[in-house]
Amino acid sequence: MGRVLVIGAGGVGSVVIQKMAQHPDLFSDILLASRTELKCKDIASKISGVNITTASVDADNVKEVVALINDFKPELVVNVALPYQDLPIMDACLETKVSYLDTANYEPIDEAKYEYSWQWAYKKKFEEAGITAILGCGFDPGVTSIFTARAAKHHFDEIHYLDIVDCNGGDHGKAFATNFNPEINIREITQEGKYWEDGKWVVTKPHEIHRPLDYPNIGEKESYLIYHEELESLVKNYPTIKRARFWMTFGQEYLTHLRVIQNIGMASIEPIIYEGKEIVPIQFLKAVLPDPGDLGENYTGETSIGCRIKGVKDGKEKTYYIYNNCSHQKAFDETGMQGVSYTTGVPCMLGAMMYLKGIWKKPGVYNVEEFNPDPFLELLGENGLPWVEKFDVDLEL
Amino acid sequence: MGRVLVIGAGGVGSVVIQKMAQHPDLFSDILLASRTELKCKDIASKISGVNITTASVDADNVKEVVALINDFKPELVVNVALPYQDLPIMDACLETKVSYLDTANYEPIDEAKYEYSWQWAYKKKFEEAGITAILGCGFDPGVTSIFTARAAKHHFDEIHYLDIVDCNGGDHGKAFATNFNPEINIREITQEGKYWEDGKWVVTKPHEIHRPLDYPNIGEKESYLIYHEELESLVKNYPTIKRARFWMTFGQEYLTHLRVIQNIGMASIEPIIYEGKEIVPIQFLKAVLPDPGDLGENYTGETSIGCRIKGVKDGKEKTYYIYNNCSHQKAFDETGMQGVSYTTGVPCMLGAMMYLKGIWKKPGVYNVEEFNPDPFLELLGENGLPWVEKFDVDLEL
Repeated sequence: MGRVLVIGAGGVGSVVIQKMAQHPDLFSDILLASRTELKCKDIASKISGVNITTASVDADNVKEVVALINDFKPELVVNVALPYQDLPIMDACLETKVSYLDTANYEPIDEAKYEYSWQWAYKKKFEEAGITAILGCGFDPGVTSIFTARAAKHHFDEIHYLDIVDCNGGDHGKAFATNFNPEINIREITQEGKYWEDGKWVVTKPHEIHRPLDYPNIGEKESYLIYHEELESLVKNYPTIKRARFWMTFGQEYLTHLRVIQNIGMASIEPIIYEGKEIVPIQFLKAVLPDPGDLGENYTGETSIGCRIKGVKDGKEKTYYIYNNCSHQKAFDETGMQGVSYTTGVPCMLGAMMYLKGIWKKPGVYNVEEFNPDPFLELLGENGLPWVEKFDVDLEL
Repeated sequence: MGRVLVIGAGGVGSVVIQKMAQHPDLFSDILLASRTELKCKDIASKISGVNITTASVDADNVKEVVALINDFKPELVVNVALPYQDLPIMDACLETKVSYLDTANYEPIDEAKYEYSWQWAYKKKFEEAGITAILGCGFDPGVTSIFTARAAKHHFDEIHYLDIVDCNGGDHGKAFATNFNPEINIREITQEGKYWEDGKWVVTKPHEIHRPLDYPNIGEKESYLIYHEELESLVKNYPTIKRARFWMTFGQEYLTHLRVIQNIGMASIEPIIYEGKEIVPIQFLKAVLPDPGDLGENYTGETSIGCRIKGVKDGKEKTYYIYNNCSHQKAFDETGMQGVSYTTGVPCMLGAMMYLKGIWKKPGVYNVEEFNPDPFLELLGENGLPWVEKFDVDLEL
């Protein structure tokens, strides 16, 4: 029996709730809250077997979140709202001494800057409060970090080279749409590239480095080196890593659309004054673009996300590839959501399960690779995301 | 001595006022009005030699325009505001019995539909009121129509084939910007193509028909068949025309940007609800894009706009090409505005001059080709837009 407050009712929130409802013994009482309660009610109406209630909350407002927590008294707050809202929700958890889990690191709303510093700064406070914060428990970050933890625990004495490879081989049939919150997606993708090498960060122009990579069951796709947040914690937690990079596939059309969106100023996070009111162009664009939650129906193909690792075990060089493939159509048939929401929502639910079972529970602020990966990975396949590991393969990298 | 009310303080309005100020005997008293009076004051501050005052007006509001006219008592209202505002301004002119001139035909704000029907429907009322409406007196429509009138008056017994060719061979150095109001520009360019042939309109997909054309002093540029409003009045006023088309040059990058702007929904004229308020995406995009009035400073190259005509004179086939080239840099040096604003503003001022001199003055509603082209073309060169005519040339079309 457990009580959780889930904040955020987008595509990921919908998957999280549906997946929790598959474990009614554990997630017996759920409160789902978001700015628009109607979206919560819509999700809740499709759920049975658990006690689910809904509420409206402005997650930027610490007082509102505190009031909600005090009223519902959850054991854990699961944050699948916007990354800007991580800190106010963590503040509310501190004030009420309730543990916390999220899927994406904090970034300021007025600056496309991805780093854990703001959240790591809460470590001492969470220790003192005796509560746990589990950071970045989606797929990437999340499963990719746990894959790396498994590699470090079972297959390598030292990891030297880590390449996280993220391929969306799907086709949603729209001229342009993003697979998750377009505001966050575009901010992430249009930034400079960055990777870790020989003890320091190397910065590249956006999309400067790219190469074709071969993905299981998908084939060869042009893959672009971008910065992704799990790199920051992984190089810190695995100091033997000499080089860590993140690769994501994009089609030419997608990149053309991104380039134009930037050229015309619609990717800007600087507000303009429009009819006397401040409006941030990228937030307005988000309202115009297709809702990622609506992409599922005719979405074909698969995602394939994993870690390609080179290192040393028992004095010998070794290569290792661990990955999951997820079918958009299967994800949609099960949850009404496409694969990108599904691959984020399932690990989020599992992280919450790890906490409620007391397996991932220690006062402080932690990235997911700092917990035991085994019990998580044992359950990942049967909860919808089976994974494969291969040894001594050509990593292409 | 003449009194004119000019409504609209964009790039074209700025050129119109500056050009009027070069003829202080004729344009002795000017009232410049627009929604934002500050823009009027900014233009007026650069003018000397004429009496110029400014006012704020919402040109959608007939009563406000009527009040302004009754207060200032102009002989002519020059409308360089938005095409949506043509009808309310014409209504105000009718109510006050003051003549009217514009540079672009009316289109409803909620429909990208370009036709003269709405304005032509005022013909009887203007006749009865004893006032003149001069429609479409910019460059195209405007000078292109007057070029055609010259051809019909002096060089042809019958015009059979008319191709209006509009090349902007300039480079403003920005990734993307439109040369006039982006809202109007994008609406115009993304519509279906349309041309006149054998007594009826032929509709094409947007940009379906294109070919390279050679422009004087610029060279070969890919040119796209689009619909342009002067075609409607020209085929009516010159019924011997078998085929009339309009060609405009676009670069590949420009077309890519347009395509993406449409794909992402930012070209839409359907309002969306954003934070509880109706906002039209293309109007928001306009606010984000560079102001066409700011493009002048580093704008290099020339525009070249003209008419390529084939027909019969004294029983013999004949070809004819009449055009103007305009340097963006020269236009900027003289007026602080780029060539596209300049080529629209100069003919607008000249049309007003024709009216004040009593040369283009007859009760009713008229397109510019219905007036005597000679006195207008006599003055066009010395007012900044010299034109060239060539006979027996390869029209390429």
